[in-house]
Amino acid sequence: MVPTPEAAVIPSVPSTDHAEAWTRLDAVVRRADSAAGPYGLSNAATRCRLLQAIAAELDAQADALQEAARRELGTDSGTVMLERAAIRQQIDALCTVLQRHHWQHAAIETTPLRLCAQHVPLGPTAILGGGATPVHGAIGPDALAALAAGCPVIVHARHTHPMCHALAGQAVLRAVREAGLPDGVYALTPELPGSVDALVAHPDVRAAAAGNRSDALRLMRRSLDRAEPIPVLSEPGACNPVFILPGALNAQAEHLGQRLVRQFAAAPAAHRPALVFALGGDGYVDLRETIIDAVNALAPVVMPEGTHGHAQRTDWLLSAPRVTLLAEGAQPGARGLARPMFAETDDTHLPAPPLLDDACRSPAGLLVRCSSGQAMLDAAARLGRQHAAVIHMTAGDGFDDLALATKLLSRLQRIAGQIGINSTVAPPAWHVAGASFAIERFLRPVVYQDAPPILLPAALQDDNPLHLLRAVDGEMRH
Amino acid sequence: MVPTPEAAVIPSVPSTDHAEAWTRLDAVVRRADSAAGPYGLSNAATRCRLLQAIAAELDAQADALQEAARRELGTDSGTVMLERAAIRQQIDALCTVLQRHHWQHAAIETTPLRLCAQHVPLGPTAILGGGATPVHGAIGPDALAALAAGCPVIVHARHTHPMCHALAGQAVLRAVREAGLPDGVYALTPELPGSVDALVAHPDVRAAAAGNRSDALRLMRRSLDRAEPIPVLSEPGACNPVFILPGALNAQAEHLGQRLVRQFAAAPAAHRPALVFALGGDGYVDLRETIIDAVNALAPVVMPEGTHGHAQRTDWLLSAPRVTLLAEGAQPGARGLARPMFAETDDTHLPAPPLLDDACRSPAGLLVRCSSGQAMLDAAARLGRQHAAVIHMTAGDGFDDLALATKLLSRLQRIAGQIGINSTVAPPAWHVAGASFAIERFLRPVVYQDAPPILLPAALQDDNPLHLLRAVDGEMRH
Repeated sequence: MVPTPEAAVIPSVPSTDHAEAWTRLDAVVRRADSAAGPYGLSNAATRCRLLQAIAAELDAQADALQEAARRELGTDSGTVMLERAAIRQQIDALCTVLQRHHWQHAAIETTPLRLCAQHVPLGPTAILGGGATPVHGAIGPDALAALAAGCPVIVHARHTHPMCHALAGQAVLRAVREAGLPDGVYALTPELPGSVDALVAHPDVRAAAAGNRSDALRLMRRSLDRAEPIPVLSEPGACNPVFILPGALNAQAEHLGQRLVRQFAAAPAAHRPALVFALGGDGYVDLRETIIDAVNALAPVVMPEGTHGHAQRTDWLLSAPRVTLLAEGAQPGARGLARPMFAETDDTHLPAPPLLDDACRSPAGLLVRCSSGQAMLDAAARLGRQHAAVIHMTAGDGFDDLALATKLLSRLQRIAGQIGINSTVAPPAWHVAGASFAIERFLRPVVYQDAPPILLPAALQDDNPLHLLRAVDGEMRH
Repeated sequence: MVPTPEAAVIPSVPSTDHAEAWTRLDAVVRRADSAAGPYGLSNAATRCRLLQAIAAELDAQADALQEAARRELGTDSGTVMLERAAIRQQIDALCTVLQRHHWQHAAIETTPLRLCAQHVPLGPTAILGGGATPVHGAIGPDALAALAAGCPVIVHARHTHPMCHALAGQAVLRAVREAGLPDGVYALTPELPGSVDALVAHPDVRAAAAGNRSDALRLMRRSLDRAEPIPVLSEPGACNPVFILPGALNAQAEHLGQRLVRQFAAAPAAHRPALVFALGGDGYVDLRETIIDAVNALAPVVMPEGTHGHAQRTDWLLSAPRVTLLAEGAQPGARGLARPMFAETDDTHLPAPPLLDDACRSPAGLLVRCSSGQAMLDAAARLGRQHAAVIHMTAGDGFDDLALATKLLSRLQRIAGQIGINSTVAPPAWHVAGASFAIERFLRPVVYQDAPPILLPAALQDDNPLHLLRAVDGEMRH
């Protein structure tokens, strides 16, 4: 059975008819595979046109999406608007990267061998298990970056909000057609028993991305059972640790504490600063009091991805040894809202990454009292990968915190995608540097040797038809 | 117990004293971790000095290494010379990349946020389970690329040739000291029961690389049990498929067959063309006869990594459905030599990647008769990742093979690191494009936001002290 184009974007209620479901999944993947060749060869202008059309089509559906999100997830009026704004910002950053032409890493070597090289898309990419929010569930940061890189995407939709998915998915498919690209460039497949495993096991799927740690680990294990494992991209943890160094702590504990809790309540889950390290002492006492007061005054926090598991995660956190409740915000009175909380522990009782990362998916913060600068460094070394980390330090002439900050930076470089100093970290997908790295994850390098001009990809042809900046024997040249 | 520096480079006979072994392994990893900070900050000149010193120190040990290799592995006089030549060539390519300064991907964004970004080394890297040849066992392509990237390496030595390891390992350690770097930059640890797993599980090990597929899969599984999985780099398969398109086959079956078998016998295992696809017909019959005659005339092939498992692997290949023996070379009369063989099958009976890749570690070739161009494309799609692939096509005015070659290239781009057209593929580690990609695998991107100048890495400081070419708002500038 060959599905109609629409069949691929309307998630159905989980069916018990497995055979038909697999046939449909297989057809979806095969269409993506057929599209991978031509789409992989599309130029930057075409991909930008697609991405901008996606933003426009989603904007056109704003009201319908808002209404569907309210009915299916109970989200308030701002959620879809914020998601669309985030998508728009990410698309602008991705297009800037594509237009700059460094992302293809085109290189030509003339001696001793005639070689040329570029990065090419990985191929059909499954986007799984993340993006439970209204719009991102159908087209999130990973899907957009994969499309920018030239990979067809197959988004595996959760069954929690089929109306949102259908609206957003059809908007994306319209954009694909407007850009003159084959339908196989984008598909949304419904969640069915075993469908995640089936998708990752499909030989034509060449990469996968998961929105959270436990899904990613499951996909990685499943990928190792393939004849040939594929890259599985996983989101880093979202604890986004904040380190308040002694100089900064003593100078402005109260100010920093208030700012922190404001960000904690307002930031999207992936960018919520939920782990705070500070040295014990007078400044710490002030910081602690400020956090308690501010958290007590917090309204319930919107969880557009649903509050499922929130209570369990906070229970787990509080049942860890020497982790105690510090403060809680107001009880939520409606769906989609969670009661924010902050706990406290000391550096020797910092929970391990899986538990911590899990807790940080909820608005559950943890203040960590460190016994010394070295203890803070050791704690930093035990953290898993993180979206972002922030160091607060004195920035005066004396640079009191400089020695510790330097050591900390060296540690944090190994785990954090983005490091801010005395700043609020901007979501990486929204700026050009972050967008460039997001695209890179969906590319792989290929070297061509002795290829006749007629077989060379456009990026590497002698007359440089794409007007790329290319590394010719190491010299950057147009 | 703190080991003397030498203790880390003299592999011992497997010991039953686990506790002491773990203590020693832990100490080795901790020293690598301590070295990771300063070594990660070292500039390109320092790293080139280290790499060139490694080449020089290995050259100085040439005779001793040759003698040790003869005694431990039975290898002939040319093996160590070839390995040293390969290392020298790779080091020259790595240094060219380092001196060009694009590898750090330094980027500065001035609007709308003040951000800068670079790629940083992953950190202490375990090199495991590969490099069973005399010199590469202690310092192979992955270890050299990791060092170029700024990662300390911990090489896990097989117990098959401890004298070679001790000689090569001590040569590298002398080079580390000559370059003024901490000893922790390089360590060679002995193979002990459970030591591979212990190394990959160690929290201070931040990346691992394995020299063959089954080791890599084991490491990947083990890595998923860590609190935080680490990247595990695996070698692609070494079947290095060769596709002879109809025009080329009909024009020069005999010439291509002879050339193929010459390369098959002479190339290092990782670059041996061991899988040959051609369409059935008169040209195929000629190709087949040529291969039979040439393989029958082959002398035993040197296997510097040892002939262990060779007979079993060829038996497995020949027991696959419809795979038949085509020809065998001469029986070996000495250690370290293997009897080369070629088998034949058709496109519908091509064994799956794990079996194929395993067979290709031996001098065991497979000629695949394809029923059509489409069958050849389908077979290509079923191959796993490969070091290299070659297409032989007619290159005349008519480009008879062009349509098929274009489709094939699009398929091969997804699996091959290097694609040659009518050429012999050069080992990727030996040229600049390949060296650049080899380094990239040991780096990760980091974005810095609002960092004061004094905390910024040298690559990103305002006055550009390293004179790098940097992407400033997308413009490449010195």
